[in-house]
Amino acid sequence: MKFMKYVSKIHRCANLYRTGKYGNTDIGNYEDTYILSVCNNPGVSQDALAKIISVHKSNVARHMASLEAKGYIRRNADEKDKRSLLVYPTEKAQIAAADIRKITSEWNTLLLENFSEEEKKLIAEYAKRLAEKAEKIIEGE
Amino acid sequence: MKFMKYVSKIHRCANLYRTGKYGNTDIGNYEDTYILSVCNNPGVSQDALAKIISVHKSNVARHMASLEAKGYIRRNADEKDKRSLLVYPTEKAQIAAADIRKITSEWNTLLLENFSEEEKKLIAEYAKRLAEKAEKIIEGE
Repeated sequence: MKFMKYVSKIHRCANLYRTGKYGNTDIGNYEDTYILSVCNNPGVSQDALAKIISVHKSNVARHMASLEAKGYIRRNADEKDKRSLLVYPTEKAQIAAADIRKITSEWNTLLLENFSEEEKKLIAEYAKRLAEKAEKIIEGE
Repeated sequence: MKFMKYVSKIHRCANLYRTGKYGNTDIGNYEDTYILSVCNNPGVSQDALAKIISVHKSNVARHMASLEAKGYIRRNADEKDKRSLLVYPTEKAQIAAADIRKITSEWNTLLLENFSEEEKKLIAEYAKRLAEKAEKIIEGE
């Protein structure tokens, strides 16, 4: 089945929707995910962030450099492990996160408006089980 | 519900799985989607490709430049509209596409192995309906 094609389509359309709503902010393509993750995990290491988001470490490094330059995050060397960078959200990130959550919530409402309550429950359950299985596959089960 | 978080997680884990399987090829992060789309739509314009994949036109331009440099695609100006670039797959892309389809199919099998036939049917149906709705939202319904 074309399952992954549909999943990727939903993911990409959601991104187009959100970036279309950010208006004149300087939030770049896919950077909103990183802003939210840092706000939800202040002091997280870049390596841990790659696991949380399920992306390559090189992607995290690139996005963190961009977000630091724009004033959304700051990075400090870990006192216990000097090679590790810990990431903290700035006030600018906290303000942006509220917007990002609101816009994501609007998208979810639109996307699911034609589904019954019973279907929404099933979709939520399947999505959760699939995401957990996906992470297990990546972690080598 | 955390629906989009799960959808994005599945999408990103699938990407990590596939890129981990490409071994020593020069297929970059997320480039496999573009290779497949060009193979499935030979002679497509870059603008049409952005709609097919549901990404910003700037993303298409960036990935096409990279894939052209690596010999996966070639681009010609459209005879009818000189500003438009039409994209064609090379033999290298056709060979890669067979691998990409095989690895995606393996991923789907792994991801869905713990679901019943009835559940798989429902998941396929919901994923299709959600993807179609997502596209409609982006196109302004």
